Amino acid sequence: MDARMMDAMSAEMTSMSGMPEMDAAVMQACMDACAACEQACTICSVQMMDGHMMDCASACMTCADMCNTMMRAMLRMPGMTPASMMAMLDACIAMCQTCMDMCMMHADQSPVCAMCAEACRACMDACMAVKDAMMAAA
Amino acid sequence: MDARMMDAMSAEMTSMSGMPEMDAAVMQACMDACAACEQACTICSVQMMDGHMMDCASACMTCADMCNTMMRAMLRMPGMTPASMMAMLDACIAMCQTCMDMCMMHADQSPVCAMCAEACRACMDACMAVKDAMMAAA
Amino acid sequence: MDARMMDAMSAEMTSMSGMPEMDAAVMQACMDACAACEQACTICSVQMMDGHMMDCASACMTCADMCNTMMRAMLRMPGMTPASMMAMLDACIAMCQTCMDMCMMHADQSPVCAMCAEACRACMDACMAVKDAMMAAA
Amino acid sequence: MDARMMDAMSAEMTSMSGMPEMDAAVMQACMDACAACEQACTICSVQMMDGHMMDCASACMTCADMCNTMMRAMLRMPGMTPASMMAMLDACIAMCQTCMDMCMMHADQSPVCAMCAEACRACMDACMAVKDAMMAAA
Repeated sequence: MDARMMDAMSAEMTSMSGMPEMDAAVMQACMDACAACEQACTICSVQMMDGHMMDCASACMTCADMCNTMMRAMLRMPGMTPASMMAMLDACIAMCQTCMDMCMMHADQSPVCAMCAEACRACMDACMAVKDAMMAAA
Repeated sequence: MDARMMDAMSAEMTSMSGMPEMDAAVMQACMDACAACEQACTICSVQMMDGHMMDCASACMTCADMCNTMMRAMLRMPGMTPASMMAMLDACIAMCQTCMDMCMMHADQSPVCAMCAEACRACMDACMAVKDAMMAAA
Repeated sequence: MDARMMDAMSAEMTSMSGMPEMDAAVMQACMDACAACEQACTICSVQMMDGHMMDCASACMTCADMCNTMMRAMLRMPGMTPASMMAMLDACIAMCQTCMDMCMMHADQSPVCAMCAEACRACMDACMAVKDAMMAAA
Repeated sequence: MDARMMDAMSAEMTSMSGMPEMDAAVMQACMDACAACEQACTICSVQMMDGHMMDCASACMTCADMCNTMMRAMLRMPGMTPASMMAMLDACIAMCQTCMDMCMMHADQSPVCAMCAEACRACMDACMAVKDAMMAAA
């Protein structure tokens, strides 16, 4: 997400109702990590090895969907409450964990799985940073 | 989801790894409730009143995305673990709650908001029934 | 999509700007066919045969995404023009054709592929009926 | 999309069946433009002016969905044929045109609409470059 796009979002657009505004840099880093994880997971879900798809594909597809949903939720903060935001961040973290665990099982044979696992780890960290920022602001 | 489609999914396709198979009827009811909630929320997010969209629109859009992601996750059970399944069900329930609360604020003026709130409630109930089935199976 | 949901959508909500209202039954049938095709394609994209996913999986995933996008577009008609509506219907038809062709190659070995191909065919027919209705209304 | 992710995609993963491999730089630029357009449209669809959402919101939401579907299709090239690829590019171009036209009507009052229209224009150009590359390769 480029700086111009982030700047276009006013304080009103990046705040939950009844909550102080979130740290814009932490939010932006999380949206970028979600977008990157969606792409890595989508690539991983269709990779072939010896002419066949990998057994992580189902987890990768759902992780891609969850990361996209999480990124979009962060672009529509007035529609979130602290409770729904926390629950969605937890779901995104849990789904990235599941996907990462499955990809790590064959990360040494597949560079795509290694890249996907790394994107999942980065997304988990970025979601946890948003949780920390929310708790600090509360 | 019609019965033929559900029948096409073998036991293997509807089970998480290392978990007993879920009750197919409970799963099917939840996927149907998610699909109906996605549609109701999408309609609600673009409704106009006095020439303007409603303030629930942001919550409705994210609820639509979350319900679609939840439905797809249930169509790909081998990619889920009990932990990620529980976290995603909790996120779907929390997002439906947020959307329902916002729509209920003007349910008496807008039949679309009333319908959307009802679809959110049905989706929450269906997700809770899946959680109960998982806990009973564990 | 149940009748109550369809009734909740006013004439204004189901019309493109500057176009006569579309036949509600044709639109509803198309949205239902898109939703069913998204589900069938999602199931097909994760099915296993001899422990491996099928080579139609990539087409099925994109067909699921396109059908969902098409269904949502029809729930937001004031955002469409005749030109963009026609182009999206053509894309949905083309993607269903691609997915159906790939699934038909192993429809006799896989009941899931047979079901997916059938859902693609039904979705193509429903999209073509919407195109016909648009041309009749123009 | 970072260079490492693009490199992880083998020639096999970026090619349609029966077609020469596409120019990776043109594909990457198009995926990036689609991702940026999805974000700009999502922001635009929830912006408020004088306490109300804008009338471009419906078009922006569908444009966001179409751009995401287009980006994912390009991450799964073995599932595409030249015919479905062309039809989807045309749909993405037409939807970006519709969204851009609606946003341009109030681009001088809303910097968000101006940014969204610019992202739509960039996405259209990038999709046309992919069409050109396909025709040159055919």
